Amino acid sequence: MRAVDVIARKRDGAELSAEEIRSFVQGCVSGEIADYQVAAWLMAIYLRGMSRAETVELTRAMAESGQVLDLGELAARAVDKHSSGGVGDKVSLVAGPIAAAAGVVVPKMSGRGLGFTGGTLDKLESVPGLRVNLSIDEILDQARRIGLVIASQTADLAPADGRLYALRDVTATVGSLPLIVSSILSKKLAGGARSIVLDVKAGSGALMQTEEEAVQLARLLVDVGTECGRRVVAFVSRMDQPLGLAVGNAVEVREAIETLRGDGPADLRTLALTLAAEMVRAAGLATTEAEARVQVETTLSSGGALAKLRDMVAAQGGNPNAIDDPSSLPTAPIVEPIGAPRSGYVGGLDAGVIGRTMTALGAGREKKGDPVDHRIGAIVHRKVGDHASMGEPLFTLHLTRAETVAVARDKLLAAYRWSEAAVERGPIVIQRIGPG
Amino acid sequence: MRAVDVIARKRDGAELSAEEIRSFVQGCVSGEIADYQVAAWLMAIYLRGMSRAETVELTRAMAESGQVLDLGELAARAVDKHSSGGVGDKVSLVAGPIAAAAGVVVPKMSGRGLGFTGGTLDKLESVPGLRVNLSIDEILDQARRIGLVIASQTADLAPADGRLYALRDVTATVGSLPLIVSSILSKKLAGGARSIVLDVKAGSGALMQTEEEAVQLARLLVDVGTECGRRVVAFVSRMDQPLGLAVGNAVEVREAIETLRGDGPADLRTLALTLAAEMVRAAGLATTEAEARVQVETTLSSGGALAKLRDMVAAQGGNPNAIDDPSSLPTAPIVEPIGAPRSGYVGGLDAGVIGRTMTALGAGREKKGDPVDHRIGAIVHRKVGDHASMGEPLFTLHLTRAETVAVARDKLLAAYRWSEAAVERGPIVIQRIGPG
Repeated sequence: MRAVDVIARKRDGAELSAEEIRSFVQGCVSGEIADYQVAAWLMAIYLRGMSRAETVELTRAMAESGQVLDLGELAARAVDKHSSGGVGDKVSLVAGPIAAAAGVVVPKMSGRGLGFTGGTLDKLESVPGLRVNLSIDEILDQARRIGLVIASQTADLAPADGRLYALRDVTATVGSLPLIVSSILSKKLAGGARSIVLDVKAGSGALMQTEEEAVQLARLLVDVGTECGRRVVAFVSRMDQPLGLAVGNAVEVREAIETLRGDGPADLRTLALTLAAEMVRAAGLATTEAEARVQVETTLSSGGALAKLRDMVAAQGGNPNAIDDPSSLPTAPIVEPIGAPRSGYVGGLDAGVIGRTMTALGAGREKKGDPVDHRIGAIVHRKVGDHASMGEPLFTLHLTRAETVAVARDKLLAAYRWSEAAVERGPIVIQRIGPG
Repeated sequence: MRAVDVIARKRDGAELSAEEIRSFVQGCVSGEIADYQVAAWLMAIYLRGMSRAETVELTRAMAESGQVLDLGELAARAVDKHSSGGVGDKVSLVAGPIAAAAGVVVPKMSGRGLGFTGGTLDKLESVPGLRVNLSIDEILDQARRIGLVIASQTADLAPADGRLYALRDVTATVGSLPLIVSSILSKKLAGGARSIVLDVKAGSGALMQTEEEAVQLARLLVDVGTECGRRVVAFVSRMDQPLGLAVGNAVEVREAIETLRGDGPADLRTLALTLAAEMVRAAGLATTEAEARVQVETTLSSGGALAKLRDMVAAQGGNPNAIDDPSSLPTAPIVEPIGAPRSGYVGGLDAGVIGRTMTALGAGREKKGDPVDHRIGAIVHRKVGDHASMGEPLFTLHLTRAETVAVARDKLLAAYRWSEAAVERGPIVIQRIGPG
């Protein structure tokens, strides 16, 4: 089978066979198929789409393109969690410890931030000393001992995804449903967990800009994951404004810790509890949603979840004091509160604008390999539906260079839309999709 | 302007600006834009198409991507000729000398064969000693002295086409009208001729398999070429069966020489005279079609055209004896006539099958850089509409290895379709498109 023929068939809208997809993915990983051929194939997929069956085959082929983790006796209780990415999204740092404290095994492989959405690994690395590059043996050992690991995707798992993603990023083929679904699920399949809980974000701060698109992606994730033999539940959650109040790296870790202490913003708490409860059900530790709710609320209020995060940090070489005393996390030399330019209700707070601004300032990266400054970030004090009086603190900038304050202030002020009348804030969780 | 943004706009079906197209083509030639980005862009163009204006801009940008030939005082009489490629297509070797003998300056840059269609350069190189890699100075000097040059495309002219074509070939993006048109015309524009005569083939032995597709391509070539300031006339000609009787390299040169001597097959003679007459008109050497006809028929019957080919061969280092004594051209050690397996009328003779068979046997190349054996070929003695009695010579194989005879015979026999009743052979020239 010649690569150019497989490209031509997809170009013409044909449904590729399992064999064609497998041989293409294998050739892509072995380097036998050149980057330019993969790129043309990706664009053909973007424009012609893929059937459900093709997407399942692509997911499987990518999952099996490298090592597949065997979780052994942990498999029954292991639940993977994944977010499609958003601004201020520190949910893994909250839901992971809560679920693990309730008995779920959470062997989570995460990514780094790219573009305007942050990455859990970058956030975690705010903790001095903490390592995220763990070997597969270290991951399995820590999962066994503590039940919670957040490590970087190893190159051995689903290597096809690494190659395809790098090409998608530079060929304008990121936003294709079958490619997004196979990218997300192939890594989860290779990670070995039988159950997967997904958080699909919808809004200006997410890949899926509308609720409809997010629901479509969530459905496809559940359908394809299920056909691949996994129990998959997806939540569609709101990402029109940042999740919680903190956007950055160290500031988000601080907010996650506050939330695990029982404080923290309501939207973050609600979403983390919802996902953690689903993970508890998926692990078979509760039979009803209500039962799972009680368990996760208990581990949160008892301090068990916070202790679990501390254990994980210590196991990964991080300084556990950072958890007990978040002020020991890196802090920016410039902390500048900005007052509201007027009185009124916040009618909108564009998560995309905030994410892009923070990325440009150094809290995220425009392209792979760029460094990230963990100290840079922002805290928004007023969100959609809140009232602010002129001059009251609207947000606080955490910056390293005085000359960036004015630009950052103007951009963030421009992210706010104001309203004379009170504005309803929609619920954070929009929809649950998956088996009852 | 980032390459990925230009790719995304074409992906979404937008009309690219002149600036976007130019910067992409420049980045492609400079190597600043990676192959995989060019490949994704080509697939997006294949699937989304390009407007007339975009195609004109792409053609111009490619033409200006390298050196542009200045033909100086020759420009007024210079006419370029191009064929979209077919099986047994030795027209340039006949029409070029006829037009040049009538006073047209023919500075023709040709290509090598790729896939099932042959290339004029490969054919010419059957002549012992003949060089096709001429410098621009040599081309100009020979055009001035003799009025006829057939040389290889130099890397300095339209280098963007070389890069794009190599990628199209391996990414299943060859068959896109705007890409075909810009590829053909950019080289012609860079070659400096004010007038261009095109031969667009239609049928199983051509890129355009149907008459409709060929007419569409011919129209677009004329329209885009005209917008680029050239006088362009395109003929759509039949390529359902091979042109003439010979398919290969040395055998085709022999047939071209026979035709210049006043013999040769009628379809080749008719097409060559039609194209040469159009070249004479385009050069301003005749005002009506009838007048041009008389001139080209005179140069053919007078032996002037044959003398012109001899001069060109000598100027390019070839042995002119080959023109006077075609038996001195390379000949295959095995010359095997194959008899008709039945009596009847030839109802069809699939040019594509014959072209692919000859290519596979070594007369052409599957991929760039493969060697070609000039001796290998076939002569078909019966074509569509002809009657054959069982056992009468149907075709003759020219081969180098005895073990290939049976396969070649079976494949060529399978290219024949038989009919009980007499079959009409359509005229070789289907349509003329362009200014009166």
